[in-house]
Amino acid sequence: MKIPPKAKRVFEGTVFSVYQWEQELFDGSTAVFEATRRQPSVQVIATVDGKIVLGEQEQPGRKPFISLLGGVVDPGEEPLAAAQRELREEAGMVSDDWELIRTYEAPGRTEFLLYLYAARGCRVVDEQHLDAGEKIVLQYVTFDEFMLIAASDAFRNVDTAKDFLSKHYLGTIEEYKRKIFGK
Amino acid sequence: MKIPPKAKRVFEGTVFSVYQWEQELFDGSTAVFEATRRQPSVQVIATVDGKIVLGEQEQPGRKPFISLLGGVVDPGEEPLAAAQRELREEAGMVSDDWELIRTYEAPGRTEFLLYLYAARGCRVVDEQHLDAGEKIVLQYVTFDEFMLIAASDAFRNVDTAKDFLSKHYLGTIEEYKRKIFGK
Repeated sequence: MKIPPKAKRVFEGTVFSVYQWEQELFDGSTAVFEATRRQPSVQVIATVDGKIVLGEQEQPGRKPFISLLGGVVDPGEEPLAAAQRELREEAGMVSDDWELIRTYEAPGRTEFLLYLYAARGCRVVDEQHLDAGEKIVLQYVTFDEFMLIAASDAFRNVDTAKDFLSKHYLGTIEEYKRKIFGK
Repeated sequence: MKIPPKAKRVFEGTVFSVYQWEQELFDGSTAVFEATRRQPSVQVIATVDGKIVLGEQEQPGRKPFISLLGGVVDPGEEPLAAAQRELREEAGMVSDDWELIRTYEAPGRTEFLLYLYAARGCRVVDEQHLDAGEKIVLQYVTFDEFMLIAASDAFRNVDTAKDFLSKHYLGTIEEYKRKIFGK
């Protein structure tokens, strides 16, 4: 959702800010609405030789999961720069062929934007540089393997998974696959 | 995610609470982690004569959307009681045949649990009772129509949509459909 400009910030934390505002309802009465705002995130579909790069991840206090590479956009950072930084930190990789595939908005009472990028023809130029709150083991999977992982509960990126599975359901997945890999 | 019991509540709003705690990282250092907690929600797959009941919804300050019936569990309320209350308020319906299909946990830095119920053989016994922040037009759709709507961006319940589309991809959707409708 979009928090209206007139909303008042009632809490500012390290990750979340909370806003409240007076909202007019359908009958003309008003109520106090509340929503949180988070920094945007980026997800990267990094491809190398017909394979997609995924991360098997552990983070302190969470169940292990598997996901696309990516992370939180730093304050003042451009989303593309964040995607390039995360690809380099998490996989030691760079690409000369980036494309913004789409964005997702959070549906509930959170203002949050997610940018999904394709990074084609990635190459390794560096070691992983993880911080002390990350463990990431890279996996290189075929598109069919990716679809099976996306269909499982262990895959973390629900919006992106739904997107790929929807396109399979609607019969437009081959087109999307060509876009991801750059034919 | 699960907020650890030792976490401190640093903000309490009308919908969100924010918690912070000292988290040990993989190298033995620590960092302050932050997460929000929300009341759990319920979603209801209400069926009548081989059709699923959906709501075309408008809420103040949001884009119109289409979703399953449901809403937020009141403090102290049992999830099943909340599902029964929401079905009655939003559709004027009751059912004698309820089943908890599954739960979903939020993946990110939010502690939030979503209960998905099937309510089979629903019947109308009352008017809608909406509050001033809701407009809901009921739609009765076939299972195939439901799958098409779930595959679209206008459908609000991303976790549930991904679940159905995954089962279609994995070839187990007919079984799931029988569970939803009670064969």
